[in-house]
Amino acid sequence: MNGIQRIDSNPRLSRVVVHNGVAWLSGIVAADCTQDIREQTRQVLQRLEELLAEVGSDKSRLLSAQIWMKDMPGDFSAMNEQWSAWFASGETPARATAQVCFDAADIRLELIVTAAV
Amino acid sequence: MNGIQRIDSNPRLSRVVVHNGVAWLSGIVAADCTQDIREQTRQVLQRLEELLAEVGSDKSRLLSAQIWMKDMPGDFSAMNEQWSAWFASGETPARATAQVCFDAADIRLELIVTAAV
Amino acid sequence: MNGIQRIDSNPRLSRVVVHNGVAWLSGIVAADCTQDIREQTRQVLQRLEELLAEVGSDKSRLLSAQIWMKDMPGDFSAMNEQWSAWFASGETPARATAQVCFDAADIRLELIVTAAV
Repeated sequence: MNGIQRIDSNPRLSRVVVHNGVAWLSGIVAADCTQDIREQTRQVLQRLEELLAEVGSDKSRLLSAQIWMKDMPGDFSAMNEQWSAWFASGETPARATAQVCFDAADIRLELIVTAAV
Repeated sequence: MNGIQRIDSNPRLSRVVVHNGVAWLSGIVAADCTQDIREQTRQVLQRLEELLAEVGSDKSRLLSAQIWMKDMPGDFSAMNEQWSAWFASGETPARATAQVCFDAADIRLELIVTAAV
Repeated sequence: MNGIQRIDSNPRLSRVVVHNGVAWLSGIVAADCTQDIREQTRQVLQRLEELLAEVGSDKSRLLSAQIWMKDMPGDFSAMNEQWSAWFASGETPARATAQVCFDAADIRLELIVTAAV
């Protein structure tokens, strides 16, 4: 519709919106937020991979990432370990990380990215 | 100027910046922040509608939204009610929501969006 | 590679990613975070200027900015003074500012921008 493609839309958000060669993704949290930071990060990155595939993109084409964390001092190094291992290629996005508060107490990180399609 | 259009610029920010078919908007807060979350959300969305109209866009063309809230546990469902009602069409953007601190104590939410023009 | 240019990539992030005429920058913090807000803002803006120059852009071509601050009530006006003076031209980006928590206690602000190249 008018050059905009929306994936998995509901009344609050669309999981992915593609326009003009760029995919904008909704914030991704882990499927199972009872898990620790290592496993939450792994689940978030796996979900990201699936969503990118739905619009013909992949992790080598990420442009930007914001990582919102519940506990930066506590979780930063474990998150980064998973993150860097996932980018085997070194084709990393522009990134910013901050500690915020989440509605649901168990969420330890949320990831917001854009990607080239 | 060089393919960039700026709307309502002042020494701190421009309300809207358009480039390459995408409008980037400054954070929008309610005109009257003494109001409750329901009314602040309504005012923010009305203001957004006006700003989009100024650059020839509209709410069916939103790409991304970040919603920063003062009190997520307390305000989340009332904000979402207003939000979802406003998107009658279901053409919702990619979205992420987090709780942050605001300088002015009365601000209950700030909305930052991009839109296709 | 596939229309994406990455500057200063490491396993966590790329300092700048350029695609389709837009540069996405990683969050910038001051080189010396023992300094006060005035000096940290100055250092962040100087670093931004260098990074923009690396991709053939400059401060008159900023599209969006998010400013994350450690202490908004305390630092807001000093940050704004530096910020507005830096934009001599008045060609300011769309902007949003919020208070967040940083991992490193001394960081007083982080700046995340996009720019037209």
